[in-house]
Amino acid sequence: MTYLDHAATTPMLPEALDAYVATARELGNASSLHAPGRYARRRVEESRERIAAALGARPSEVIFTSGGTESDNLAVKGIFWARRAVDPARTRIIASAVEHHAVLDSVEWLVRHEGATVTWLPVDGVGRVEVDALRVALDEYGDEVALATVMWANNEVGTVQPVAELAGLCAGRGVPLHTDAVQAVSQVPVDFAGSGAAALTVTGHKLGGPVGVGALVLGRDVECTPLLHGGGQERDVRSGTLDVPGIVAFATAVEIAVKGRAEYAARVGSIRDALVAGVREAVPGAVLNGDPIDRLPGNAHFSFPGCEGDALLLLLDAQGIACSTGSACSAGVAQPSHVLLAMGADDDRARSSLRFTLGHTSTPGEVDALVAALPAAVERARRAGAVRAARA
Amino acid sequence: MTYLDHAATTPMLPEALDAYVATARELGNASSLHAPGRYARRRVEESRERIAAALGARPSEVIFTSGGTESDNLAVKGIFWARRAVDPARTRIIASAVEHHAVLDSVEWLVRHEGATVTWLPVDGVGRVEVDALRVALDEYGDEVALATVMWANNEVGTVQPVAELAGLCAGRGVPLHTDAVQAVSQVPVDFAGSGAAALTVTGHKLGGPVGVGALVLGRDVECTPLLHGGGQERDVRSGTLDVPGIVAFATAVEIAVKGRAEYAARVGSIRDALVAGVREAVPGAVLNGDPIDRLPGNAHFSFPGCEGDALLLLLDAQGIACSTGSACSAGVAQPSHVLLAMGADDDRARSSLRFTLGHTSTPGEVDALVAALPAAVERARRAGAVRAARA
Repeated sequence: MTYLDHAATTPMLPEALDAYVATARELGNASSLHAPGRYARRRVEESRERIAAALGARPSEVIFTSGGTESDNLAVKGIFWARRAVDPARTRIIASAVEHHAVLDSVEWLVRHEGATVTWLPVDGVGRVEVDALRVALDEYGDEVALATVMWANNEVGTVQPVAELAGLCAGRGVPLHTDAVQAVSQVPVDFAGSGAAALTVTGHKLGGPVGVGALVLGRDVECTPLLHGGGQERDVRSGTLDVPGIVAFATAVEIAVKGRAEYAARVGSIRDALVAGVREAVPGAVLNGDPIDRLPGNAHFSFPGCEGDALLLLLDAQGIACSTGSACSAGVAQPSHVLLAMGADDDRARSSLRFTLGHTSTPGEVDALVAALPAAVERARRAGAVRAARA
Repeated sequence: MTYLDHAATTPMLPEALDAYVATARELGNASSLHAPGRYARRRVEESRERIAAALGARPSEVIFTSGGTESDNLAVKGIFWARRAVDPARTRIIASAVEHHAVLDSVEWLVRHEGATVTWLPVDGVGRVEVDALRVALDEYGDEVALATVMWANNEVGTVQPVAELAGLCAGRGVPLHTDAVQAVSQVPVDFAGSGAAALTVTGHKLGGPVGVGALVLGRDVECTPLLHGGGQERDVRSGTLDVPGIVAFATAVEIAVKGRAEYAARVGSIRDALVAGVREAVPGAVLNGDPIDRLPGNAHFSFPGCEGDALLLLLDAQGIACSTGSACSAGVAQPSHVLLAMGADDDRARSSLRFTLGHTSTPGEVDALVAALPAAVERARRAGAVRAARA
């Protein structure tokens, strides 16, 4: 099988799985006071330190969660609530138009449910957030902004955002910036303190750790109302029994991913470059979406004019090639990608796109398999598209 | 080591850990459309069916979450929000006074943050919720009640609540009842449909499954506003990438625990009875808290007059015996248990208590170890208590 969907989920690193198993055989709730509880607590705190060191954060800034979606929800809703509680005028959220649904849908819920207002930051043709638009929004609305949220790198088209520049503008206006770095950590350098962001989302299963474990890196002085109340774990910001085996496995994966990042980016980036070149040669009309240079090394995203992405996905799947039309989190929903539309693509181009994403198990042979299967699949998808168009 | 804190967390069953590892070696996000994604989806749906069958629910009623705290928060806040959205007068929550902090603190947050009002249901001297109090509250406030929430069995003193009776009263007034069955599943018969509850919390790590995975069983017609927005997984009630290995391991554990429940209850109950008898003989003044008959088979909870529970815990810990002063989720917080206080205990009795909880790895030898160590520990804790009292 040719797996070109590492952005949806990537296999657990053997070291992370081993760490999970070894820790799961130990005993104890990290909130318990007895010896096994204290031992479990030490494992959690060591993991927190490893993750903090890897991400340029302080250990106390790492809040463990159940993953990217929870971290995004906690940051967006929690910071919104906390800021509005201090100053009821702060009801505005500034968000990029290309955020993951975990951010988008949280923002939209706050609009519908909590009276929030929102300014969407536009992106240019390669999916890069327009920095000037943030400046204008802050000038116009600075005193009523609860938070801004812009992802570190886009999960569909792979474009890396100018996070430090955006965070600098926000900091100048006292506005906390949250950034979803789920796709970025392990692929590009991510330094929390250096970025100037107030909060950063990271998750395990995109970088070789387990599903169901992630973190919100939350600046020490950033107030955040909890989403989950209870035992008061995690600075009282996130209650729930700590998943000690999952956390140790997550820390193992983060550490390996960050230590090996440069080598990984070079190796995976060169396979990706071969994929891009091979696809272009195999399908001359294919259009590469996203920033051609400032993008995740594991990401290639194409529109195939005249094809339905869904049809192409299934035709490739029948040849043993797994890829995606966009985010797995909106897979199955027959809607053109909001990311492509925000980049100025029309409906047809947005619907004709496929994402190929590489990871730690990727090989040049997988590119060969894709390039061999692609022309016939595109041809077949185009014929199906033409029939459908003629009938319409 | 003598581990008498299974209510805080119990070791993963080998079958559950094996299922985790085998599934983690597979590939694919259950929301992806390609073959590995569809395979992952099948594993999730099979797990959902196994859990539903074990708990007397329909598969579509099983909403996977990150565990008990999230399920409790989702039920309490989500049902509150959904009911209030339909009828703004429905702002009252009826809750027992002995709920877990995940429920208590969710309720209190809704009071502080969302204008909820609350009626606390009292319990009797053994910790059993007074059914008449629910009847009175429903008569008085029926039309303004958003939901009621009463746990299936108490996590500290082990008392089993009359859930079916409470649910019947609620149903008669059209009020959804949520029940936290985290401690109950695996120890007493739990049948969701038969109970008449609208929503039920269950989690993995209390019954031999992994930490970080649980479910909210949510009746098909019960509206519930999501806590986590995003990809729209889980009937749109709970977004977030499905933890396929964790879910398969959770289903494995639930199935084993429910199938073996009667045998488990008999075996563990007899060890527990030996523990109760042994403790009473070793420490004649010890007082058993909770319902002497209608209680979880793995639970024994004592007050040791004249002792500080915390001191006793540490003295036993020094002898290799792990137990708890109450919920691990409030361990470390030097407050008398709200459960004991609600049962009418005074501060001294509440502070003098220890919980011993048994599980699938428990042996009669562990009881012997406890009974051997207890008298000296109690004696020492009493002397320390007397010194402290004399100085005060």
